[in-house]
Amino acid sequence: MALYEDIYHTFRENIKQGVYSPGERLPSIRETAEKFNCNKITVQKAFERLKNEGLIDNQVGRGSFVCFPDTPAGQQHVGFPFHSAYICDDLFPADQAFELFDQMFREEGHLFDTGPMEGDSELVEALSSRYKVDHERTIIISGAQQGLNLCRTLYNLNISEHMLFEDPTYSGAISIFRPKHFVELEPDGPDLNRLKQLMKGKARFFYTIPQVHNPTGISYSKGKMDEIARLAEEHNVFIIEDDYLSEFADHPGERFIDRIPHRTIYIKSLSKVTAPGIRLGFMTVPGAMYQDFIRGKFSADLGTSLLMQRFFVRFISSGLLDRHLQKCRTLLGSRKKTIESVIGKYPFLRIPAQQSGYNIWIESSIPLPGEHVPWAKGEHFSFSSRWTDSFRLSLLGMGDRDFQNGASYLDSLFQSCSRNSSRPVL
Amino acid sequence: MALYEDIYHTFRENIKQGVYSPGERLPSIRETAEKFNCNKITVQKAFERLKNEGLIDNQVGRGSFVCFPDTPAGQQHVGFPFHSAYICDDLFPADQAFELFDQMFREEGHLFDTGPMEGDSELVEALSSRYKVDHERTIIISGAQQGLNLCRTLYNLNISEHMLFEDPTYSGAISIFRPKHFVELEPDGPDLNRLKQLMKGKARFFYTIPQVHNPTGISYSKGKMDEIARLAEEHNVFIIEDDYLSEFADHPGERFIDRIPHRTIYIKSLSKVTAPGIRLGFMTVPGAMYQDFIRGKFSADLGTSLLMQRFFVRFISSGLLDRHLQKCRTLLGSRKKTIESVIGKYPFLRIPAQQSGYNIWIESSIPLPGEHVPWAKGEHFSFSSRWTDSFRLSLLGMGDRDFQNGASYLDSLFQSCSRNSSRPVL
Repeated sequence: MALYEDIYHTFRENIKQGVYSPGERLPSIRETAEKFNCNKITVQKAFERLKNEGLIDNQVGRGSFVCFPDTPAGQQHVGFPFHSAYICDDLFPADQAFELFDQMFREEGHLFDTGPMEGDSELVEALSSRYKVDHERTIIISGAQQGLNLCRTLYNLNISEHMLFEDPTYSGAISIFRPKHFVELEPDGPDLNRLKQLMKGKARFFYTIPQVHNPTGISYSKGKMDEIARLAEEHNVFIIEDDYLSEFADHPGERFIDRIPHRTIYIKSLSKVTAPGIRLGFMTVPGAMYQDFIRGKFSADLGTSLLMQRFFVRFISSGLLDRHLQKCRTLLGSRKKTIESVIGKYPFLRIPAQQSGYNIWIESSIPLPGEHVPWAKGEHFSFSSRWTDSFRLSLLGMGDRDFQNGASYLDSLFQSCSRNSSRPVL
Repeated sequence: MALYEDIYHTFRENIKQGVYSPGERLPSIRETAEKFNCNKITVQKAFERLKNEGLIDNQVGRGSFVCFPDTPAGQQHVGFPFHSAYICDDLFPADQAFELFDQMFREEGHLFDTGPMEGDSELVEALSSRYKVDHERTIIISGAQQGLNLCRTLYNLNISEHMLFEDPTYSGAISIFRPKHFVELEPDGPDLNRLKQLMKGKARFFYTIPQVHNPTGISYSKGKMDEIARLAEEHNVFIIEDDYLSEFADHPGERFIDRIPHRTIYIKSLSKVTAPGIRLGFMTVPGAMYQDFIRGKFSADLGTSLLMQRFFVRFISSGLLDRHLQKCRTLLGSRKKTIESVIGKYPFLRIPAQQSGYNIWIESSIPLPGEHVPWAKGEHFSFSSRWTDSFRLSLLGMGDRDFQNGASYLDSLFQSCSRNSSRPVL
């Protein structure tokens, strides 16, 4: 076996066995060449092969780092998925949910039929009453993402002059709408001057997450909500209000759907606070748009699984949803403290503004590793350079043991960032 | 109470109590005026009110007919739903399906998690092997309609110059694509001269249902399949092959995905042959388009319910799917004979060409009632006048008793059409 293959196999085994863990820096090429008593070209060749196989990655001037296993959207997460804003399904009360399914199978018929296009009437009723929206304008959808996609399709909002976004904003919205026009977010909501200026132009829709914003965790102030509602009326702009996580707001939230229901498309995820596999959400839309959305939903998938809808009726009425949310809130509180105390140890890290929810938005004053990090990087949420050194840590994507190990891992990662940044760049 | 109100209430009660049933003609205005001993204006006023309430409808020169209750897409069907191409969920083995769910709940974990974006690997494997397609290019979708919608969105195929359709074609495709360019269907496939001419132009996609076509029930001949595949290659056209119902073909079918896989987007419904509430399907796409569709699926709904996917793995492996299909085939054969013998009694009705599947496509040589009929009218499948007097009867949308009553009802309806058409128009 050629020497470079020997080096390759040694590192490969060490990575597989966790001697070097994801995100960790490998010994430098120079150090490795010394250790194996060979020239640097040989080591380079071995590292090249590790890189080609996706095991490590280089950062110019910083060395080689062990890759996190690829986690394209929707794939099973491995490692410490602080990047995933989904609740880990370990935290979902699956056994009790299965019991509800069993009850349902015993007590109900026609579960494999199609339901009404707007959704099962009992579910529409239960959600409208729970979330205080008008049931006559409410439509069940297969997750909030579908609601966004319906807006895109129905009103042609792809790369559109007519659409405004927060900066930063939800990455799923970026992938759907491919936005061009942004309004910078301040700690209490968007920059109003900029918003006003853009609303005077061609804007017809403003996509916003006014409560427990993703990724920043802020909530709009009452004053800004009022002013935005007024501007929307004045300039004939519709609000796409993404209620991503109001269940985890610290205070009962301010909503556009309450202020200007005739120009608010309210979209509520139900998967985000329960389990990603639920694939349910709902939207409440202006009366004049209701038939558009019913037709759009029909075109998109002929309706959402009635079985899952009927299950969710029971999930709410049995009180299981409320108990699950309460459990998550408690867990969230304790995990937040754990992470805040890790962050507090590193002066180059800062948690800006008032945040709620299960994500923590963090700013760094030193450059962080660019690739294969366990968090969601600022650039996923923005095209502007302002957020390059910010990142989002999500707190509910792991079971308890993984979370504890993950927190220690973050600690050691920040420690190494700190050490690296204080060394002169060679 | 004014006399017109009296007349209104009498008819209203008679309709509600079934004295006049849906599709039935009411006594004429003249007859009614004579019976109530009033002038025709009074009767007209009563009929106007019945019409405003959606209870009756007028057909110019033919009189007033009792409306079928509205059945917007996806809503619960009432009456005799010969228009519904979905298998009635009475025919679905729900109890055995529930047992599979129970087994699954006992034996599997992570059912509420997200799966891979392309779908659960076991399901992809099982479907690829069953339907003989390449698993590496196969993606699970939330029903065939979603597959069509992804094509529309990804390649901008709404009201597009680049898209060809059969005439007639699936109404759901018409609602998604809003087609402009059609190729007339002959008993063995499309008019090849016309297809060639259009393929030479701007066409880049041809949407086709070559086996057990919807609505006509025909299948393309081997000769036409070969020639179309050749033309597609020559003119760089992609085939969107909708495998709607090949499970019910009389013979193993001819497919584009086998001939020209690198230019075929194959879409398979799984709801159509099982139960509408299943909301599953899959598509196998050219390798070069695979990542487009994965991204499109992500944008559309972040993935299909893992719970339903894992259920379907068991639905196949337990043999339940095969037993269900066999039961449907038997039922279909017997129902087809029943309907054919009804149709055979009326010389003005004709079942054209070789048809398979659970729809019967019928031509009438006399005009049939225009509104509120229990079948799907030709104009739902075509913009051309050629199919105005054709209609589709679906055979699996009802339980046994409803079907038998429905067949008698059809018989009496055709009898009355026959009588009406032989009378001179007054």
